[in-house]
Amino acid sequence: MYIGVDLGGTKIAAGLVDDNLKIIKKASCPTNVGRPYSEIIKDIACLIEDILAQTGYSQSDIKSIGLGSPGVPDIKNGVLVFSNNLQWNFVPVRTELQKYFNTPVYLDNDANCAAIGEYAAGAAKQYNTTVLVTLGTGIGGGIVLNDKIHNGFNYAGGEIGHMVIKAGGIPCSCGRDGCWERYASVTGLIYMANNAAKEHPESMLTQILNKGEKLNGRNIFDCAKSGDKTALKVIEDFRYYIAVGITNIINILQPEAVVVGGGISNEGEYLLAPVREQVAKEVYTDKVPLPHIIKASLGNDAGIIGAAIVGQYQ
Amino acid sequence: MYIGVDLGGTKIAAGLVDDNLKIIKKASCPTNVGRPYSEIIKDIACLIEDILAQTGYSQSDIKSIGLGSPGVPDIKNGVLVFSNNLQWNFVPVRTELQKYFNTPVYLDNDANCAAIGEYAAGAAKQYNTTVLVTLGTGIGGGIVLNDKIHNGFNYAGGEIGHMVIKAGGIPCSCGRDGCWERYASVTGLIYMANNAAKEHPESMLTQILNKGEKLNGRNIFDCAKSGDKTALKVIEDFRYYIAVGITNIINILQPEAVVVGGGISNEGEYLLAPVREQVAKEVYTDKVPLPHIIKASLGNDAGIIGAAIVGQYQ
Repeated sequence: MYIGVDLGGTKIAAGLVDDNLKIIKKASCPTNVGRPYSEIIKDIACLIEDILAQTGYSQSDIKSIGLGSPGVPDIKNGVLVFSNNLQWNFVPVRTELQKYFNTPVYLDNDANCAAIGEYAAGAAKQYNTTVLVTLGTGIGGGIVLNDKIHNGFNYAGGEIGHMVIKAGGIPCSCGRDGCWERYASVTGLIYMANNAAKEHPESMLTQILNKGEKLNGRNIFDCAKSGDKTALKVIEDFRYYIAVGITNIINILQPEAVVVGGGISNEGEYLLAPVREQVAKEVYTDKVPLPHIIKASLGNDAGIIGAAIVGQYQ
Repeated sequence: MYIGVDLGGTKIAAGLVDDNLKIIKKASCPTNVGRPYSEIIKDIACLIEDILAQTGYSQSDIKSIGLGSPGVPDIKNGVLVFSNNLQWNFVPVRTELQKYFNTPVYLDNDANCAAIGEYAAGAAKQYNTTVLVTLGTGIGGGIVLNDKIHNGFNYAGGEIGHMVIKAGGIPCSCGRDGCWERYASVTGLIYMANNAAKEHPESMLTQILNKGEKLNGRNIFDCAKSGDKTALKVIEDFRYYIAVGITNIINILQPEAVVVGGGISNEGEYLLAPVREQVAKEVYTDKVPLPHIIKASLGNDAGIIGAAIVGQYQ
């Protein structure tokens, strides 16, 4: 049995994960960012103790605790070097959590944990190498090569969303212009749809805005599926930009599978089939097997399951 | 002792490499592409036999023969899957070369071999992970992670030059629009300089063209260094595009060192110092150590030295 913790800017989710990588029990509580880190880590400890109490397990049943966090971890020392979301700098997560548990504690980036979840127990289970691409507010990434997370000599790699695909393009919060996540995240989709709505007042997108509602991934896709030409063009552009970034990843890394996650991946083949077609056209060589481009299968559980076993893949 | 062979579209270079990774003796002959592969491989064998004869060594002194080739190799089976430059498809390089030598034969992509050369014996010798970026007619790449070449599940990875950095940009021979090598290779530099010369007839670039000469890496850099504003702007753009691609690689892979090779890297710090500065500004996080961005040190020998020992890094 393992404990996996997905520490986010809004909530902390924890789960008891069995040796078959199934979640037996999960629980969550708000993060309330801004408090001293010792309080937040105490809440994590309480969450874990609750789960154990509710399931009748004890600390001695737990092989390890893994924690996925936004930001850049120092994996070796179990220290979170920094995280904007958590407003943390050099927080000794391992030492702090081991005040409560006499158990090995592993720390990694949340996107890496999700990638390990999909790799070990989800959509990429049958593949030896994978890159997880999470299309959300931004684009998160996790790279698994040779049965290990690859995040580079300083543990800061895997930031695939901050790959410039349009030099001189839309400014990104990271300081660069034209990052992939400006175009192929849900935020990018909504940005393009708002622009298209302005240019095409006859579109269903504009009707939504005129009702005082906001555009979101769901209603933009719905408009496209209803035949609205403006929305359809936005979706086509969105898919094109997704394909540009995925093709870049493939030309560089050739992972056996690219797993696409995030809420928008629930659009399934309506999103992915045209992406796959575009990638097949764009990849450097068609003389070799193409990486599989597949939908993530674990949803938010990927982060918990991956965190639970992350120590085995560091 | 090892034999390294750098098989190019124009010439074949081979070298005898000692255990300290120094080239003892090298020789070359034209490739004459278009002939049956058996003839070309026979020429490789003759080249190796000549080198052995001239240095007084025999086959039994050679631990292995390694061959770097353009295109996509099947490393496991020693087969070149395909190469545009050589016009080869599924050529059994290992089997063919072993008709002449009773020695292990290893095959890999030429850019990967050059990366191994720089990693094992050149500029990246002190670093654990590296990406070699060769700025030439195109942009070649070799990725070394965890003491192994990373080229993906189908051996076709490392094509960093075909990472789109400007979606919808200049069409590339690979079929994509806006590949990095359209902007940051010597070809890209010359393209930008020719355009700038047209727009600025007063520039030194135009004077060169008016003399009936062609622009090349050397004279464009010379014009910039002489203070020609148009040429300087071209060089600034060139450095910017180099930095965009290197930053992408860093954000994704965080190698300990990025080694910049190709003839243009001889411009040294005049090229690299501003690139380094731009990368430092653009990388996703400045809270962790930055990868070193350094000039390749082995020149064309990197391919021979790397090929010689490539079997140890596959």
